[in-house]
Amino acid sequence: MQDSKPEIMKNLDRVGITGLRTIVMTKWKGKRYNFVPDIELTIDLEKEKKGVHMSRLIESVIECIESEIEVRHNSLEELERHILEKLKEKHPYKKSEIEIKTELVIPKKTPVTGKLSMETYDISVKLFYENGEYRKRLRVGVIGNTVCPHAMEKNEGKTHMQRAYSILEIETSYDNEIALEDMIDCVEISFPSRVYTLLKTEDEKYVVKKMFENPKFVEDVTRSILDNAKKRFKNCRIKAKTISEESIHRHNVMAEGSCES
Amino acid sequence: MQDSKPEIMKNLDRVGITGLRTIVMTKWKGKRYNFVPDIELTIDLEKEKKGVHMSRLIESVIECIESEIEVRHNSLEELERHILEKLKEKHPYKKSEIEIKTELVIPKKTPVTGKLSMETYDISVKLFYENGEYRKRLRVGVIGNTVCPHAMEKNEGKTHMQRAYSILEIETSYDNEIALEDMIDCVEISFPSRVYTLLKTEDEKYVVKKMFENPKFVEDVTRSILDNAKKRFKNCRIKAKTISEESIHRHNVMAEGSCES
Amino acid sequence: MQDSKPEIMKNLDRVGITGLRTIVMTKWKGKRYNFVPDIELTIDLEKEKKGVHMSRLIESVIECIESEIEVRHNSLEELERHILEKLKEKHPYKKSEIEIKTELVIPKKTPVTGKLSMETYDISVKLFYENGEYRKRLRVGVIGNTVCPHAMEKNEGKTHMQRAYSILEIETSYDNEIALEDMIDCVEISFPSRVYTLLKTEDEKYVVKKMFENPKFVEDVTRSILDNAKKRFKNCRIKAKTISEESIHRHNVMAEGSCES
Amino acid sequence: MQDSKPEIMKNLDRVGITGLRTIVMTKWKGKRYNFVPDIELTIDLEKEKKGVHMSRLIESVIECIESEIEVRHNSLEELERHILEKLKEKHPYKKSEIEIKTELVIPKKTPVTGKLSMETYDISVKLFYENGEYRKRLRVGVIGNTVCPHAMEKNEGKTHMQRAYSILEIETSYDNEIALEDMIDCVEISFPSRVYTLLKTEDEKYVVKKMFENPKFVEDVTRSILDNAKKRFKNCRIKAKTISEESIHRHNVMAEGSCES
Repeated sequence: MQDSKPEIMKNLDRVGITGLRTIVMTKWKGKRYNFVPDIELTIDLEKEKKGVHMSRLIESVIECIESEIEVRHNSLEELERHILEKLKEKHPYKKSEIEIKTELVIPKKTPVTGKLSMETYDISVKLFYENGEYRKRLRVGVIGNTVCPHAMEKNEGKTHMQRAYSILEIETSYDNEIALEDMIDCVEISFPSRVYTLLKTEDEKYVVKKMFENPKFVEDVTRSILDNAKKRFKNCRIKAKTISEESIHRHNVMAEGSCES
Repeated sequence: MQDSKPEIMKNLDRVGITGLRTIVMTKWKGKRYNFVPDIELTIDLEKEKKGVHMSRLIESVIECIESEIEVRHNSLEELERHILEKLKEKHPYKKSEIEIKTELVIPKKTPVTGKLSMETYDISVKLFYENGEYRKRLRVGVIGNTVCPHAMEKNEGKTHMQRAYSILEIETSYDNEIALEDMIDCVEISFPSRVYTLLKTEDEKYVVKKMFENPKFVEDVTRSILDNAKKRFKNCRIKAKTISEESIHRHNVMAEGSCES
Repeated sequence: MQDSKPEIMKNLDRVGITGLRTIVMTKWKGKRYNFVPDIELTIDLEKEKKGVHMSRLIESVIECIESEIEVRHNSLEELERHILEKLKEKHPYKKSEIEIKTELVIPKKTPVTGKLSMETYDISVKLFYENGEYRKRLRVGVIGNTVCPHAMEKNEGKTHMQRAYSILEIETSYDNEIALEDMIDCVEISFPSRVYTLLKTEDEKYVVKKMFENPKFVEDVTRSILDNAKKRFKNCRIKAKTISEESIHRHNVMAEGSCES
Repeated sequence: MQDSKPEIMKNLDRVGITGLRTIVMTKWKGKRYNFVPDIELTIDLEKEKKGVHMSRLIESVIECIESEIEVRHNSLEELERHILEKLKEKHPYKKSEIEIKTELVIPKKTPVTGKLSMETYDISVKLFYENGEYRKRLRVGVIGNTVCPHAMEKNEGKTHMQRAYSILEIETSYDNEIALEDMIDCVEISFPSRVYTLLKTEDEKYVVKKMFENPKFVEDVTRSILDNAKKRFKNCRIKAKTISEESIHRHNVMAEGSCES
């Protein structure tokens, strides 16, 4: 049925599965990571075929994960590449894409008291295949803050501040090794201050002091992320976006930009 | 089929429709309001019946809304009562509940420059019928802020602040007239400062000054909402909850309490 | 402060406000529409300026809406154009974008019994300004269904079916008049059957019969939307996407494509 | 500051942290489980105290998780009990609550071809402490389907079906050992058919056949879950709710009930 001619003969760019939740494990630089991600996997569909054999997409994912009991994959993009390669054996395609969206938990130390704090980040790793070539798009979503320099100037040092959320997205070749941890760091150093899950009184004093010494608009944060990423990562297309959840408004403010390195 | 005996004879508390989006209009104190709410309407199901005739629930909603071209309903609870009464003619029940969740937009003036600002609030009006009696539960969700008094004390006046979201919920008899606008006001005066959609520089200065003069924990905001509501509304069960979207953490902090008046 | 030189001199593509909820009214072909939309409004920021004067963006929105008591705007894109024009007087920009996301409620008749049914659709209207020219992107999100032709063939007429959600997106010049209602119709006729809020027994029979006579993969629905839109709308870039919420799986399947007309 | 007297002296029921995302591991019946949950942890606050020392709540969570490198906890409720006990040493309280919301992935076999399929479920484990006693509330959220028996009768075997989502909630004493897997099974056998991530053609035929042989309203599914849970679990308060994402409507239908065992 799927291989029969469709009534309307028209190529489709992306056909597949979305919202697939499963277990994924990787071993990055010797350390084991466990994820419960949301996966989207699509291929193109040529105009002569009515449909995609969806179960072959699922099989490719499950077979790659199953074999993972020994955790053979060093990174999410390596796992994705194995899934796309396995799928190639099961189902013809010209273009394919796979995205794994999940959370990365990194242990950190609090800034003054040096206590252990666990920090959680949104991450996405997407792999694109076309014309024999793999490209990847890495994305991190990081919580931080903005501190209004304009209000600070007008109020003798008093100002409003709020939680902000920044996204850094990098598109590059498959072989360009970029650690998600480094991308997260690029974002965190762009905020007035990093945020922490645990803050004892002395840590909290340090963070508040840092925010007041370092006021930044949402525009400043986005520019700083772009600048940091451009210096640190080469041969990349870089996009950054910051959304500031204003403490004095009901709406948010945002700034978005891009560059190449 | 719905009236046949089910395999498992067991009363069910709430059977009906949820996520119904439609248009609703009211005329409250002479002013016309338009809503595009999300509606949930349920009735109990006795153990001898296999199912509810769902289309009769829908018909009751649509017939009440259709007749509304002249906007006969003064309030959302009055509209809800008409729907439950109309449903009673179409379908037997012992208990019924209807909830309308939507947004209320109120024009306000900015605090210093006196410019027009449009403020939007989450509201919910729920009506319960049982034993010939109607009770209602009114809820408002309001954006504001918290300003940490502890950090302020430890940092010579510097502190962290952030957006907060408070919910005030009142359960009372159908006839106890309570304006959602008054409930919103109870919440807004409990924050360090109200927030505004529009703030010119002088307005922003006023809001920042107010926040620094009036630092409040999430616990202080919740207690203040309960206190204000208890004084203003009589013969009610009152619940309040505040969630503070910390600018120095990834997680939120919250405080919840209740009282009777 | 906003007009001062930033530390990092870098153009930004989109700076502004997001998540602004307010009231909007239009008068389209003589009929009045009320919306409570979510608005995003951004402009570009040149590298020599530290920040955007955000309050001027808010003012432009509020002044256009305020003046609307007489409902002067025929469409959401006309309102958006007035907002961008007003903003131009208040704040310099080279590029600007405004998006209004909201819900459109359309009264319809049930297919057999001819009863009134209210149908609600997700809509978005976005206006882009650059180099003296306005372009728009219209989007509708419509609920329907898919019915598996493959399972039907393998099971002597029995099959699985499920709710599906399709998005049709059209990018075209400002002056190309396209009714959102017509876009919605393009999508609805592409499903195995339209869905209705109200269905009496005879209507339900009609819908079920139609679904079984007209089985469609998610790929078929997307191709049909593209085909219908291409025939009906000229000088457009057209994108369509369908997500099928499988009744036999935990995940969804999807198909996405595009064309020009 | 937190220990000072508040302006408004009023007990609060639940004060604490919410939306804390971190890593959690358990070893249930010898098998290791990894979770990236969302945690809410609250305590009551007496009227004489202005606030809760929030960082002590965080410390209690992190210290219990840190010590877990050897994975000492057999279940999420055991981990939660350790957190509440550790918190008791750090911060006084009369009542406390902790909820861990996360996803459980269970490998299953497809029904005919016997292939490996990974199935993911929403789970929540909540522990309540009061008066020296611990109680727990276990919750599972499971995807399945409904198949309309009414339409089937009216259409000579043809009908509409759709994805459904059921929640089973059990409140019982801490020591009453109940496996989340058994709760999930109670729900899955209540649907017209289980759903699977992977289905080859023969598996799909089996599932479609089962759905047509076993039509069920949303009311039937909820009653069946209650019945199954009552037989299997003793000394419990049981709640069940099913939401059916209608393939012929834009809205959902639902049925909710409860019983004791």
